[in-house]
Amino acid sequence: MKRSILKFGGTSVSSLEKIKNIADYLKDRAKQGEQLIVVVSAMGKTTDELMASVNSITSSPNEQDLAVLLTTGEQQTISYLSIILNDMGVKSKPLTGYQAGIETVGHHLKSKISKINSELFDQLFNTYNVLIVAGFQGFNTDNEITTLGRGGSDTTAVALAAANKCSCEIYTDVTGVYSTDPRIYPQANRLDEVSYEEMMEMSALGAGVLVTRSVEIAKNHNTPIYLGKALSDEKGTWVMSKLDILEKKAITGVALDKDMIHVTLNYPHYDTHLMDATFNNLEQEEINVDMISQIVNNEGLQLSFTMKDTEENQIQKIFYRLKEDYPDLYFKIENRFVKVSVIGSGMRDMTGVASKVFRTLIKADIPFYQVTTSEISISYVVDEKNANDAAHLLCEQFEL
Amino acid sequence: MKRSILKFGGTSVSSLEKIKNIADYLKDRAKQGEQLIVVVSAMGKTTDELMASVNSITSSPNEQDLAVLLTTGEQQTISYLSIILNDMGVKSKPLTGYQAGIETVGHHLKSKISKINSELFDQLFNTYNVLIVAGFQGFNTDNEITTLGRGGSDTTAVALAAANKCSCEIYTDVTGVYSTDPRIYPQANRLDEVSYEEMMEMSALGAGVLVTRSVEIAKNHNTPIYLGKALSDEKGTWVMSKLDILEKKAITGVALDKDMIHVTLNYPHYDTHLMDATFNNLEQEEINVDMISQIVNNEGLQLSFTMKDTEENQIQKIFYRLKEDYPDLYFKIENRFVKVSVIGSGMRDMTGVASKVFRTLIKADIPFYQVTTSEISISYVVDEKNANDAAHLLCEQFEL
Repeated sequence: MKRSILKFGGTSVSSLEKIKNIADYLKDRAKQGEQLIVVVSAMGKTTDELMASVNSITSSPNEQDLAVLLTTGEQQTISYLSIILNDMGVKSKPLTGYQAGIETVGHHLKSKISKINSELFDQLFNTYNVLIVAGFQGFNTDNEITTLGRGGSDTTAVALAAANKCSCEIYTDVTGVYSTDPRIYPQANRLDEVSYEEMMEMSALGAGVLVTRSVEIAKNHNTPIYLGKALSDEKGTWVMSKLDILEKKAITGVALDKDMIHVTLNYPHYDTHLMDATFNNLEQEEINVDMISQIVNNEGLQLSFTMKDTEENQIQKIFYRLKEDYPDLYFKIENRFVKVSVIGSGMRDMTGVASKVFRTLIKADIPFYQVTTSEISISYVVDEKNANDAAHLLCEQFEL
Repeated sequence: MKRSILKFGGTSVSSLEKIKNIADYLKDRAKQGEQLIVVVSAMGKTTDELMASVNSITSSPNEQDLAVLLTTGEQQTISYLSIILNDMGVKSKPLTGYQAGIETVGHHLKSKISKINSELFDQLFNTYNVLIVAGFQGFNTDNEITTLGRGGSDTTAVALAAANKCSCEIYTDVTGVYSTDPRIYPQANRLDEVSYEEMMEMSALGAGVLVTRSVEIAKNHNTPIYLGKALSDEKGTWVMSKLDILEKKAITGVALDKDMIHVTLNYPHYDTHLMDATFNNLEQEEINVDMISQIVNNEGLQLSFTMKDTEENQIQKIFYRLKEDYPDLYFKIENRFVKVSVIGSGMRDMTGVASKVFRTLIKADIPFYQVTTSEISISYVVDEKNANDAAHLLCEQFEL
């Protein structure tokens, strides 16, 4: 019997009415004899509302406690969807992360899935037609509730697909993957297919469709992912092995990452202990820094890096703590920058992409601050006010 | 080290501000070296709000699904309380029913606690000073989430106290147990002590302070229960073995049960199959009927009984189903009645209580419909409009 994993994000389950529409769709699929595992996020703004309550208490909530709180959002969605399906006569069962056997390791709020018990699903499908799994959550070996961090529901879905050896359909309010954000560049094309590698660059660089970790898991297990618009007939995008993609384009997309902050450290002189303490702390808190640059001159040390803005509280705590040992340390956290990236797996075979981008930005008088390159992408940090223009010009330049 | 169980109900945790006040109190107790297990309910009207959402979907939600939904309320409270305590520097850990090892048997929404692993708490107190347990919830051997039904958080607290061999403090917005509801009879006295048996009668009869099951568990394990007002210095009531109570009164209280419905069945003739089907269905749905009366005469069969109004949906379903097989069946569900009960463990040694009550009601021209007696109580079903008058008269009669 065919088994499929479907994931519905927060906007597609933001009201009971919308959840009912999804239930109707699932009923049709289940009727055709499919075994469905459905992963859902919290309804609409639920997670934001819970976070707002917490922020009214403290700026540094205990992570274990916070995971217990945030997971109630998804738990409510699985219940509502299952109530509706059972009421329609579709045999359905809601499963929290723990009940679905999603074992994790690592920090409570940024856990990684370590194990999934797919036999559990084989058993449950003897009784039920639809199994509804709370996304974004799991449990660790201490029996504590954990969350998977940003984009965690996608990770849940892809990991379940990998464990169940089937494909994964991820439904949002956007029709698949575009060469760049259509709100910024309306002429952007929807892509029929992208490779895992390209998708990973897009995710890491803020295209915002799928988090890197999800794509990594899919790549490792060769799990095909379909990205489509919920309850729509419009064609979406398949993310798959590049071997399976026929027509390869040099440049597939331009991505904008607005959810980042730019951190600058100043210190009167280069101090290895300070550098060591800084990166030690970042590692311990599991904070990923992205673009790093360092200047050492007569005026002392200047270290800059970019990182996700979700970790702003943690990074502030780290530096206030460091300032106790290094009173001359000066730090600044800014969020007025955007990272613009050009992505394409054909890039490695194509010369002059970097210089083409350079010239495009210079000609348009758009200053950029940091530059990084990977095998299949080049990224530039620009001022927020120039980000959309930069994306526009680059789309035109590379005919996306 | 002294270990205590404390339970705080919905009104005492209805806002983050109130939860903070409780956290302050717990901090003081923890500082004095106590190991605290704190059981909390859902915040204020959370459970009612979740039920309202469900009722907008269907009148007969799947019970397993509903349990998954309702338990999110308590899960949120444990997280908030733990966030606040940890933020204050008190080492605290939130535990869902599953995490607290509260194993249950029976229907998903009316489960009974079958096992508690108290060693788990011994271990956790090596690391934490306060363990916060979500009331009202557990899990069954199929790893499914369950709830304990009405008053379930009290049951959680008392069962934890029994398992941990310590006393149980239950805090509400009322100062202990009164001889009758002070809102009805302002001269009512607060009782310093009541026996388990008297408390059980009061609970079963609607005094509404503590559900019968909780008192039963306490009685079986000889667990003392303190009923007091949250964060107040006013003295509350101890519920304990009658052997430990010095001054015994014949009549301790008058209780009113308004949360009941009165069901009447009419059928043209006495039919054993119908009777059998009726009680079979009630048993399968685990519905407790209370006062039963039956009349069989020339006009046919009339069966009446009272039950908790929480099961109104279920009972309607049962009778609509029965009507398919017995088209001449006529049934009526009314909630315009109240049960008034006189309670006292001295009653068995005191003659004439029943007739005193009879005469009091007759003299006041208050008709009553059904009467039941137990070892230590007598109950009368009266019209809703007469209930308060009846309680008043009986309090005066027995000098409460």
